[in-house]
Amino acid sequence: MGGPDRPRVLVLNGPNLNMLGTREPAIYGTHTLRDVEALVRARAHELGLDVDCFQSNHEGELIDTLHAARGTHAGLVVNAAGLTHTSVVLRDAVAASELPFVEVHITNVHKREPFRHTSLLSDLAQAVIAGAGVRGYAFGLEVLDDLLGPRP
Amino acid sequence: MGGPDRPRVLVLNGPNLNMLGTREPAIYGTHTLRDVEALVRARAHELGLDVDCFQSNHEGELIDTLHAARGTHAGLVVNAAGLTHTSVVLRDAVAASELPFVEVHITNVHKREPFRHTSLLSDLAQAVIAGAGVRGYAFGLEVLDDLLGPRP
Amino acid sequence: MGGPDRPRVLVLNGPNLNMLGTREPAIYGTHTLRDVEALVRARAHELGLDVDCFQSNHEGELIDTLHAARGTHAGLVVNAAGLTHTSVVLRDAVAASELPFVEVHITNVHKREPFRHTSLLSDLAQAVIAGAGVRGYAFGLEVLDDLLGPRP
Amino acid sequence: MGGPDRPRVLVLNGPNLNMLGTREPAIYGTHTLRDVEALVRARAHELGLDVDCFQSNHEGELIDTLHAARGTHAGLVVNAAGLTHTSVVLRDAVAASELPFVEVHITNVHKREPFRHTSLLSDLAQAVIAGAGVRGYAFGLEVLDDLLGPRP
Amino acid sequence: MGGPDRPRVLVLNGPNLNMLGTREPAIYGTHTLRDVEALVRARAHELGLDVDCFQSNHEGELIDTLHAARGTHAGLVVNAAGLTHTSVVLRDAVAASELPFVEVHITNVHKREPFRHTSLLSDLAQAVIAGAGVRGYAFGLEVLDDLLGPRP
Amino acid sequence: MGGPDRPRVLVLNGPNLNMLGTREPAIYGTHTLRDVEALVRARAHELGLDVDCFQSNHEGELIDTLHAARGTHAGLVVNAAGLTHTSVVLRDAVAASELPFVEVHITNVHKREPFRHTSLLSDLAQAVIAGAGVRGYAFGLEVLDDLLGPRP
Amino acid sequence: MGGPDRPRVLVLNGPNLNMLGTREPAIYGTHTLRDVEALVRARAHELGLDVDCFQSNHEGELIDTLHAARGTHAGLVVNAAGLTHTSVVLRDAVAASELPFVEVHITNVHKREPFRHTSLLSDLAQAVIAGAGVRGYAFGLEVLDDLLGPRP
Amino acid sequence: MGGPDRPRVLVLNGPNLNMLGTREPAIYGTHTLRDVEALVRARAHELGLDVDCFQSNHEGELIDTLHAARGTHAGLVVNAAGLTHTSVVLRDAVAASELPFVEVHITNVHKREPFRHTSLLSDLAQAVIAGAGVRGYAFGLEVLDDLLGPRP
Amino acid sequence: MGGPDRPRVLVLNGPNLNMLGTREPAIYGTHTLRDVEALVRARAHELGLDVDCFQSNHEGELIDTLHAARGTHAGLVVNAAGLTHTSVVLRDAVAASELPFVEVHITNVHKREPFRHTSLLSDLAQAVIAGAGVRGYAFGLEVLDDLLGPRP
Amino acid sequence: MGGPDRPRVLVLNGPNLNMLGTREPAIYGTHTLRDVEALVRARAHELGLDVDCFQSNHEGELIDTLHAARGTHAGLVVNAAGLTHTSVVLRDAVAASELPFVEVHITNVHKREPFRHTSLLSDLAQAVIAGAGVRGYAFGLEVLDDLLGPRP
Amino acid sequence: MGGPDRPRVLVLNGPNLNMLGTREPAIYGTHTLRDVEALVRARAHELGLDVDCFQSNHEGELIDTLHAARGTHAGLVVNAAGLTHTSVVLRDAVAASELPFVEVHITNVHKREPFRHTSLLSDLAQAVIAGAGVRGYAFGLEVLDDLLGPRP
Amino acid sequence: MGGPDRPRVLVLNGPNLNMLGTREPAIYGTHTLRDVEALVRARAHELGLDVDCFQSNHEGELIDTLHAARGTHAGLVVNAAGLTHTSVVLRDAVAASELPFVEVHITNVHKREPFRHTSLLSDLAQAVIAGAGVRGYAFGLEVLDDLLGPRP
Repeated sequence: MGGPDRPRVLVLNGPNLNMLGTREPAIYGTHTLRDVEALVRARAHELGLDVDCFQSNHEGELIDTLHAARGTHAGLVVNAAGLTHTSVVLRDAVAASELPFVEVHITNVHKREPFRHTSLLSDLAQAVIAGAGVRGYAFGLEVLDDLLGPRP
Repeated sequence: MGGPDRPRVLVLNGPNLNMLGTREPAIYGTHTLRDVEALVRARAHELGLDVDCFQSNHEGELIDTLHAARGTHAGLVVNAAGLTHTSVVLRDAVAASELPFVEVHITNVHKREPFRHTSLLSDLAQAVIAGAGVRGYAFGLEVLDDLLGPRP
Repeated sequence: MGGPDRPRVLVLNGPNLNMLGTREPAIYGTHTLRDVEALVRARAHELGLDVDCFQSNHEGELIDTLHAARGTHAGLVVNAAGLTHTSVVLRDAVAASELPFVEVHITNVHKREPFRHTSLLSDLAQAVIAGAGVRGYAFGLEVLDDLLGPRP
Repeated sequence: MGGPDRPRVLVLNGPNLNMLGTREPAIYGTHTLRDVEALVRARAHELGLDVDCFQSNHEGELIDTLHAARGTHAGLVVNAAGLTHTSVVLRDAVAASELPFVEVHITNVHKREPFRHTSLLSDLAQAVIAGAGVRGYAFGLEVLDDLLGPRP
Repeated sequence: MGGPDRPRVLVLNGPNLNMLGTREPAIYGTHTLRDVEALVRARAHELGLDVDCFQSNHEGELIDTLHAARGTHAGLVVNAAGLTHTSVVLRDAVAASELPFVEVHITNVHKREPFRHTSLLSDLAQAVIAGAGVRGYAFGLEVLDDLLGPRP
Repeated sequence: MGGPDRPRVLVLNGPNLNMLGTREPAIYGTHTLRDVEALVRARAHELGLDVDCFQSNHEGELIDTLHAARGTHAGLVVNAAGLTHTSVVLRDAVAASELPFVEVHITNVHKREPFRHTSLLSDLAQAVIAGAGVRGYAFGLEVLDDLLGPRP
Repeated sequence: MGGPDRPRVLVLNGPNLNMLGTREPAIYGTHTLRDVEALVRARAHELGLDVDCFQSNHEGELIDTLHAARGTHAGLVVNAAGLTHTSVVLRDAVAASELPFVEVHITNVHKREPFRHTSLLSDLAQAVIAGAGVRGYAFGLEVLDDLLGPRP
Repeated sequence: MGGPDRPRVLVLNGPNLNMLGTREPAIYGTHTLRDVEALVRARAHELGLDVDCFQSNHEGELIDTLHAARGTHAGLVVNAAGLTHTSVVLRDAVAASELPFVEVHITNVHKREPFRHTSLLSDLAQAVIAGAGVRGYAFGLEVLDDLLGPRP
Repeated sequence: MGGPDRPRVLVLNGPNLNMLGTREPAIYGTHTLRDVEALVRARAHELGLDVDCFQSNHEGELIDTLHAARGTHAGLVVNAAGLTHTSVVLRDAVAASELPFVEVHITNVHKREPFRHTSLLSDLAQAVIAGAGVRGYAFGLEVLDDLLGPRP
Repeated sequence: MGGPDRPRVLVLNGPNLNMLGTREPAIYGTHTLRDVEALVRARAHELGLDVDCFQSNHEGELIDTLHAARGTHAGLVVNAAGLTHTSVVLRDAVAASELPFVEVHITNVHKREPFRHTSLLSDLAQAVIAGAGVRGYAFGLEVLDDLLGPRP
Repeated sequence: MGGPDRPRVLVLNGPNLNMLGTREPAIYGTHTLRDVEALVRARAHELGLDVDCFQSNHEGELIDTLHAARGTHAGLVVNAAGLTHTSVVLRDAVAASELPFVEVHITNVHKREPFRHTSLLSDLAQAVIAGAGVRGYAFGLEVLDDLLGPRP
Repeated sequence: MGGPDRPRVLVLNGPNLNMLGTREPAIYGTHTLRDVEALVRARAHELGLDVDCFQSNHEGELIDTLHAARGTHAGLVVNAAGLTHTSVVLRDAVAASELPFVEVHITNVHKREPFRHTSLLSDLAQAVIAGAGVRGYAFGLEVLDDLLGPRP
C-alpha cells in the first residue's frame, strides 16, 4: 500500500478544522490547516511514509473517505473534532476501514466542556494524543511508523 | 402510491451499510448490500409490493429521501445503522414522512456496546427487529404488508 | 431432538399470556393464546419443525420446562412477558438450556413504560422481535430454522 | 358479581403475609392474617359487600387468582407485600383483571429500606394507603364502596 | 389537650387547596375546601375529637401554625400540597411540633408528574393516604384516633 | 457588513424545517418555510437590517454557511431543529463564526420529549426563544437589532 | 375580562426582582423594576391590552395574586425568578389560574448555574423567553396578544 | 431444634441449582447438587449439626420452606442463586424466619454481569462467601457452628 | 454602616430557629434563640461590631430583610436552616445584598439526612461552620471581623 | 492525658500543607505551616490545652500517628487536605483513635472543584469548619475545649 | 516456591488492622492481629503450607511486599481493609504479582457504609469472604490449598 | 533551573511502574523501567534538556519529590499510574509545584476498565498522551521543549 515501498497514511480532519488559525486562536492557536498539512507532509517524508490529507465539514464525506482508505492505506491519523464525542457512524466507518489509527486533538479536551471528555473513538484507537498542538499529528505519524515496523 | 394497485415501500439503509459483506464479516455476515436489496425485491414481489432501496452515508441525503417519500410511498423499512442511536434529525424526518415503518438491525444490537442499546426511532416504529440478519428486512416487509391490509 | 428427522422447538409463553385476546385488546390485539399456538404449529409444519407450546403464570414451571428442554429440543422461541424485565432466574434457566433462542414480544415494548425497555434476555438471544404481533412467533421459528440449517 | 345485589370484592395478600402476628411484630404488629380477614369480612358486611380473601407465597397463584377475578368480582384490595416493588407480572395481572383496586401496606413503607419506596402498582391504583395498620384494609373497602356507588 | 376530655387535632391544608372544587375539577374533584372541612368536623365529632382546620398559601403561616400546635393539640392531619415535595422547612416544623401525623393527598400522586412521587414528610408520618379523595381526611382522623387510644 | 449602512443578519434553519406547514401541523403550525422567510424579511426591513435566509437538511452545509458568515454578517438567528440537542460540530461552527446569535424554536420544546430539553447552543446564545411560533424569528431579529445598537 | 373591550393581562414578577437595576447590574442590567413596568404598560397600550403588574418576594402573595387573576384576567406574563426552579406550589397556582402564560427570564439562564437550567413552569407555558433582557416582557405580551386573537 | 442435642441447619438452594454439574460447567464446575448435598451432610456430621437440604426452582416453595424452618431450625445456609439479586419476598422470608444465615455463592459473582453485584440478602447475613466453589457451603456451616457456640 | 466607627452586622436566622431549646433538644441543644442572640451581642461587643438579629419563618421576610441590609450593614451571619438546601430565592437575596457572609449551622448537617448535605449558599459564602453549636455564630462574627480589617 | 491537669490535643495536617504560604497563595493565603502551628500553640495555651502538631505527606504516617494518639490525647483537629475526599483508611484511623475531632479546611472547599465537596470524615466529626483560613484551627481547639468541659 | 515441598502463602493485612482487638471491638471483635496471625499459622501448618504474614498502614509498603511475593510465593490472602474500596494501585500490585488470591474481610462489609460495598479487588479474586470473622483467613488458606492441588 | 543553560525536567513514574517489562507484558510491553529511563535520557540529550527520573510505589515520596522540584526544575513528565484516577493529594502536589507538565500513560487507558477513564490530572496538564508506549515519554519531553522555547 502506498508508493513502491512506502506505506500510505491518511490524515483525516473533521468539521471546523478548516477554520484553524482563524477560529478562536486563543484556544486553537495560529497555525492554519495548511500549516498542519505542511508539517504532516514534512514529518511523513522524514519517516518514509506517503501521506494523504483530507478535511471536510460533512460527516458523510469523512465516512466515504474512510471507506476508500481500506485497501489503499496502511494507517490513519484522525482528528474528528466535535464528531469525536457524538458520531457512532464515524466510529463505525473507522472500524470498517480495519486500519490502525491514532486519535489526535490539538487542544487538551480535558480542560474544556464536559461533553468533550468522552470519545467514541478512543477505545478503538492505538493511541490518543491531546493538547500537544499541531505537533500531535507528527506524534501520530510516529506511532503508526513504529507499528508498521521496519521497511526495506 | 406505487404501481396501479401495488403499494410502494421504501427500504432505507444508513451509513456504512454499503460496506456489508466487506466490513467486519464476523459481526455483519457475508451478504453484501446488493444481496440484501435482491432479497428485499424478491420478497416484495411475492407480497405484491413495489419497493425502492436507498443507501447513503450522508444523513442529509437520508432526510431528503424521507421527505420525498411522503405522498409517494406507503411505508418504510429503516436500518439507520449508527444514526439510530444519535440522530434526532433522522427521527424527525421519519416522523415528518408520516409513514408507518419497521426498524431493522442486522445484528442483535443488545449484545453489543451500550451506546447501541438506545434507539431514537423505536418508540415511533411499528415493530423492531434485531439480530435476524438480512432476513430482518423481509420480516419488515411482511409487517408492513399486514398493516396495509388486503389489496384488490 | 424432535421427530425422526425434524428438529423440535419449544415455544414458551410467560405470565398473563393466557389472557391474550381478553386482556386489554387495545394493546395486545384480539388473538387468543390458542390462536397463537395454532399459528405457530402451522408455520412450524411448513418449515419442517416439530413444536411444543407451553405457557405458565408460574416462573418456577417455566424454569422446570426450560431445564427439561435441554437435550430434547433444538431451539426456543421465548415470550417471557413481564419476567423479561425482572427475572434473573429465568435468564439463568434459558442459559442453562444451552439452546439458541429468539426473544419475541407481541407489542412494541419500546412504546410502553420505561421498565419494559430493559431485557435480561436480549444479550443472550439470537434475535429480538417486538411489535410484530403474533406474527413475531412465526419470525422466531424462521430464524431458528435458518440457524438449524438444511435437514435431510 | 357477588350476591344477588351485593358486589364481590377480592382481598389479595402477597408473600409472607401468612406470617403476620408472628414475623417481626415490632414492625408488623400482633394481628394475624386470620385477624385481618375477620376485620375485612366485618367491614365488608357493614358496607354491603361480599368479600373473598386470598393469600399466597406463590406469585403464580396470585396471578391465577387475579385472572379468575375478572368477571366475577367488582374490585380489589391488594397488599402485594415485597412483590409490590419488583413484580411486573403481578402488575400486568392486576391490569388484566380490569378491576379498580386499592393498594394497601400495613406498615409505612416510606420509613423503611429504599427498595420499598417504589411501587409497580401505584400508578394503576385508585388509592394507596400505607402505615394505617390492618385498618388500611377497611379503608380500601370504603374507597371501593364509594367507587361502586349506591346499590339498590 | 382539647376539650375537657377530648383530644384536639389540627387539620392543615397547604397552598392552592383553597381552590378545591374550582381548580381543575377533573383532577381534584368538585368538593370545595369548605366541604372538606365540614366532612372533617362531622367525622371528628363521631370519633370524639375536637378539630381545628387551617389552610394557607403561605409556607411561613403553616410553620407558625404548626409551632403553635405544640402543646395544644394531640395530632395532625397534613395535606401539604405541593410543599410536600420541596419544603424542608415544613418538614422541620412538623417535626418541631413533636406530634403524630397522617399525610393525606386527595389525588393519587403516584399517577402524576414524577416530582410528585417524592415526599419530604412520609418517612416521619404515621401513615400516608393518597387518592382516597376527601375521604382521606376522615381516614387520617381514624388513624390518629386509634393512636390516641380509648378516652374516659 | 451588510448594505452601505445596514448590518446583514443570517437566519439559519436546520433539518426538516423545509417541511414546515406540511409536517405534523398540529405541532408545527401551518406556516411554510416560505412564510417564515417572508415574515423575517419584512421585519428585518422595518428594523433596517439586511437578511439572508438559509435552510438545509445537511449539517455540513449549515457549517459551511456559518463559516462563510464570519466577516460578512453581523449576527445570526439560529433554529437548529433536532441538531440543537446533538451536534457539537454545529455548536463549534456557531462559535467559529464569532457572531452574536439568538436561538429560536417554533414550538415550546420543554413540552416535548426529554431529549429536546437540552441544547448544545443555549449557553453560547444571546437569547433563547421557544414556543412563540414563527414570531420567534422576529423576536430574534429585534434582540440582534438592540445588540447592534443605533445606526447612522 | 379587562376594560370594556380590552383583555387584561397580569405581569407577575417574583422574588428579588424589586432589586433590578441595583442588584448585580453586570448580570441583570441597569433597568429598574419601575422601568420594566413602564415598558410593559407602553407595549400593552400599543397592543390594546390592559395590564396589571405585581411583584413580591413572598411566594404566598404570588399565589394569592394568581388565584385572584382567575376570571378577571386573560393571560399572564410570569418571571418567577428563582422560584422557577424550585416551587411546585407556584406551578400549581399558575395551573389553577387556568390562564395561558409566557415564561420570561431577563437573563439567559442557560449560561448560569446548573440549578437554573430546570424549570417547573416551562412544560405548562405557551412560550419561554430567556436572555432578551427587559424586552422579553414585551415579547410575552405579543405572544398573548396573538393568542387572544383579534378584538372588535 | 434438631436432634436431642444437635442443632438443625437448613441448606437452601435456589432456582437452577438442580442443574449443577450439567449447566455451564465452565462457570459452575462439575459437582452436581447431589455432590453438594453429600459434602454438606459430611461436614455437618463432623461439626455435630443436623442438616436439611432443600432446592426449588419455585420462589414460593423456598418461602414456604423458610417459614417452616422458624422454630425447628437453628440457622440457614442460603444460596438463592439469581433470586439473590431480585427477590424482596425471599429477603422478607429469610427475615421472617428470624434465623442467622450465611449467604453462599459457588461462583465469584463479582467477576460476572453487573446485575449479580447487588444482593438483597447480604445486609441481613452473618457472612457472605462467594467463589469458594462447593466448599463455600462447608464454610457456611462452620460460621453457623461458631455462632451456635459449644454444645453439651 | 453601623455606629460612628463600628461596622454593623446582620445575624439572620431562618425558619424553625425560634423553636431552639424547645424543639428536639437532643439534636439542637437547650439554648434558646434568645440565648443565641445574647451570645451574639456579647461577642459582637467584644469585637467592636454593632449587630442586628432577625429571625423569621417566612422566606419572604428574610428576603426583604436581606434587601434592606444592602448599604446599611457590612456583613452577614446566616443560618438559613432548612432553606439552605432548597431556596434559590434566598441565595439570590444574599447575593443581591452584595455583602460578605458566613454560613452557620448549629448541628453538624453532614451527620444528618442526605438532603441536608447540599447547600445553595456555600459556594457564595466566605466560610461555612457546622456542628459548633451556638458558638458557631461567634465564629462567624470573628471571620467577618477579620475580613473587615482594623478600625480606627 | 496531657500535662498533670491539661488535656493534650493533636493537630494533624495532611499532604501538601507543608507548602502553605508557598503553594498557590491566591488560594491558600500567605501563612506558612510554621505560622499555623504558632497560632495553634498560642490559642491552646490560652485555653489551657497542651498541643502536638504533626504534618506528613505520607498517609501511612498520618495513620500511625492517629493510632499513637489513642490513650495519650483527648481530641483531634484534623485538616486531612486532599485525603479528606478519598481516604477510607484515614477515616478508619480517625475512628480507631476513638477521639472527638474537628474537621478543618483553610479554604472554602465548597467554592472549589466538585471532588472537594464530599468528605469521608464529616459524618464522624464533631464540627466542620471551612474557609475561615488559619483561624479555623483556633475554632477547632475552642470546640474541643468546650467538649472537654471545665478542668480543675 | 516455599519449603522443599511446601508452597508458601502470603497473608497481607492492610491499614488499621494492627488495631484489631483494640479498635471498635463491637465491630471488629476482640481478636488481635497477633491472634489472627497465630490462627493463620496453625491452619497453614495443618494444610501443609508455609505462610508469611505482613501488615502495614503504608500503601507503598504493601505494594513493595506484593512485588516481592512474585516468584517466591504461590498465593495470597488479602485483607486490604479500607484500601479495598479506593486503591487502584494496590489492585495493580496484586495483579502484578500474578498470584491467585482470596479477598477476606473480617466484618460483613455489606452491612456497613455504602462506600464499603464496592471493591477494586473482587473481580480479580479467586474468592471473596466477608463477615466470617478471623476464621475468614483460614477459609482463604483452604481455598488456596484446593487451588494448588495435591502435593507430594 | 538545570545545567548552566539547560532546563531540567523531572520524569516521575508512579506505583508499579518498577515492574515494567515483568508485569503483564501483554498489556505493558517488554521494556523495563530502566529501558524507559535510558530512552528518556537519550531524547532529553538530543533536545538539550537535563532530566531526572524518579519512581516510587509510595504516594508520599512522589509528593515529596514534586515539592522539591519546585524552583529546581522547569517541567514535568508524569505517569502517575493508578494514582491518576484516585489521588487528589498527588494532583495537589503537581499543582503546588507550579510547573507545566505532560501526562503520559504507556497503555491506551480508554481501552481498559472504566475506572481508568477518569483522571485527576488531565485538566491541569499541558498535554495528555496515552497508548504510545514508552515513546510517550519522549513525546512528553518534546512538548515541554516546545513550551520552554528556544535556548541560547
